[in-house]
Amino acid sequence: MDKQELIAGVKIYFNENIPFNKHMGIDVIDLGMDAVRIGINMRPELVGNAIMNILHGGVTATLLDVSGGLAAIVHTIDKLDSFDGNLLFEKLKTLGTIDMRVDYLLPGKGTHFEATAKVVRHGRKVCVTRMELHNERGEQIALGTATYIVG
Amino acid sequence: MDKQELIAGVKIYFNENIPFNKHMGIDVIDLGMDAVRIGINMRPELVGNAIMNILHGGVTATLLDVSGGLAAIVHTIDKLDSFDGNLLFEKLKTLGTIDMRVDYLLPGKGTHFEATAKVVRHGRKVCVTRMELHNERGEQIALGTATYIVG
Amino acid sequence: MDKQELIAGVKIYFNENIPFNKHMGIDVIDLGMDAVRIGINMRPELVGNAIMNILHGGVTATLLDVSGGLAAIVHTIDKLDSFDGNLLFEKLKTLGTIDMRVDYLLPGKGTHFEATAKVVRHGRKVCVTRMELHNERGEQIALGTATYIVG
Amino acid sequence: MDKQELIAGVKIYFNENIPFNKHMGIDVIDLGMDAVRIGINMRPELVGNAIMNILHGGVTATLLDVSGGLAAIVHTIDKLDSFDGNLLFEKLKTLGTIDMRVDYLLPGKGTHFEATAKVVRHGRKVCVTRMELHNERGEQIALGTATYIVG
Repeated sequence: MDKQELIAGVKIYFNENIPFNKHMGIDVIDLGMDAVRIGINMRPELVGNAIMNILHGGVTATLLDVSGGLAAIVHTIDKLDSFDGNLLFEKLKTLGTIDMRVDYLLPGKGTHFEATAKVVRHGRKVCVTRMELHNERGEQIALGTATYIVG
Repeated sequence: MDKQELIAGVKIYFNENIPFNKHMGIDVIDLGMDAVRIGINMRPELVGNAIMNILHGGVTATLLDVSGGLAAIVHTIDKLDSFDGNLLFEKLKTLGTIDMRVDYLLPGKGTHFEATAKVVRHGRKVCVTRMELHNERGEQIALGTATYIVG
Repeated sequence: MDKQELIAGVKIYFNENIPFNKHMGIDVIDLGMDAVRIGINMRPELVGNAIMNILHGGVTATLLDVSGGLAAIVHTIDKLDSFDGNLLFEKLKTLGTIDMRVDYLLPGKGTHFEATAKVVRHGRKVCVTRMELHNERGEQIALGTATYIVG
Repeated sequence: MDKQELIAGVKIYFNENIPFNKHMGIDVIDLGMDAVRIGINMRPELVGNAIMNILHGGVTATLLDVSGGLAAIVHTIDKLDSFDGNLLFEKLKTLGTIDMRVDYLLPGKGTHFEATAKVVRHGRKVCVTRMELHNERGEQIALGTATYIVG
C-alpha cells in the first residue's frame, strides 16, 4: 500500500466502522495534508436547545475532536517510513486524544456544519491541532485546540 | 415556585426536552448544590473504537459539558432573588458555555458512566466548573474544566 | 480624544505603568486592529533551563496573556460609541482574563521573541483571542487561546 | 542516592539554578507525593495593575506551571526503578509542559501566594496535574490544569 491508499482506508474506516460517527451522521469529506474536513447535516436529534434550534455543544465538541484526530492520523501516516498496514495499525492503536479545548463562539444555527482541522505541530510524541466549525453560511461557530499522543 | 421546584423542573427539562440528551441516553440523576450527577449506560452506538469497545471521546466531552452546564444552572437558581419562572427563563436564555477543556485520562471502558460537576466559582458574569467522568468501577476516565456566561 | 489617541495611550500605559511588564522587559510594538504585537529580548533572568538556555514557560505564558489582553482592549476601544477617556477607563477596569490555554510547541531558544494576538470573536460580554509566540528565526514556540470578559 | 535525596536535590535545583524562578522570587516549600507547594511574596515588580495592586496574570500562570511541573517530576522520580542521578537526568531532560490551562477566579490581591499541585494521572507518556493558587487569606485566586510529557 502507498500513502494515498492508507489515507483512503482511514476515510472508509471513519465513515463506516466507528459506531458513534455513524450514529451522529458524520461524513469525512477530505483528508488532506493541509487540512482535514468533515461535515454533518443538522437533524432534530442533534439539537441542544429546541426553542432556538441550536446544535448541542456536545456535537460541536465531537466534530472538533474527530477532525483533529483525523488530522493527526494523516500526518502520522505521512511520516511513516514504510507504508505497510501493520505498522500503521500499531501506530493508530496508541494514538489518542490527550486533551482538547473548545471555544464556543456563536450559537450553532444552521442546516449543515463543517469542521476543518490543521496540524500546528507534529513532534515525535505529541501532535497539536487547531480546529474550526462553520455553518453553511460560513459563520464560525466554534474553535478548538487539541493534543494527541502519536509516539 | 420555590427553589427546589425550579431545580426539579430543570431536571425534567434536561431529561425530556433536550433532543440530543435523549438521543444519547443521558440521565440526570441528581442536581445538588454540592455536585451535579448525570449518567449514561454504554450502548453499541456510543463506541468510538469498536475493537477495544471504548466510549467515543465526543460522548465524554458531551457528558462533561452537560454536567458542568447543569451545575452552573443550579447555582444560578440559588442566587436568584425571587424564584419566578420568567426570571429564570430570562437567565437561562443567556446562559451558555464559553469554553471547555477535556483531559482524557483513561480509555473509556465500562458499562455505565457517570459525570459529576462542581462549581469552583460563581461570579456575577462567569461561572467556572470542574467535572469528572468515572465508569462503574470508579475509574476516572476524564477530567473537565469549563466556563459559562451567567450574567 | 479619538480612537487612535486612546490606543496610543494604551501603548504608553502598558510599556510604562505595568510593573511586571517593565520587570520582564516587555515592549509593546504595535496595536493594530488586525493584530497586536509585543516583543522581548532574551536575558539571563528569563531562562528556565540554564543548561539549554531556554525561555521559562512562565515567560511564554506571560507574553501570550499580555498580547491577548491588548488585542481585546484594542477591539473594545474600536467598539466604543464615544471616545472619552472615562468611558474607556470604566470599560478597562472590568476587563480581565477569564481563562487561557498555552500550547508549548518548541523549546524557547532564541535571542528575541515576539507574541502576536488576534481577536477571533468580540461579543458583547466575552472576547476570544488566539496568540502565537515566535523567535527571531520565525520558529513558532507556542500557541495560545484566551477569553476575556469585556462587558 | 535514594528517592528522598533525589527529591531534595530537585528542591535545591529549582530554588537555586532556575534563573527565572530566582528572578521572580519563587520558593519551593514542599515536594510531597500528595501535593507540591511553592510560594511567593508580593513585591512591587510582580504587580499587573498598579492602581488595584493586583498580581500580574503572568505571575499566576508561572506559579501554576512551576508547581505542576514539580508535581510531575516528583511522581516521575517515584516511578523510577533505580534511583541513580543519571537516569533521572535523562528523564528530566525530556520532561516538558505540553499545554496548560489557567482559570483566573479572583483578582490576585494579597501579600503572599501559594500554589499547590496534585497529579491526577501519571501514565507512561503523559502526566496530568491540577493546580491551585491561594493568597495568605486562603482565597483561591486561580485554578490550573496541565499536561507534561514524561516518557
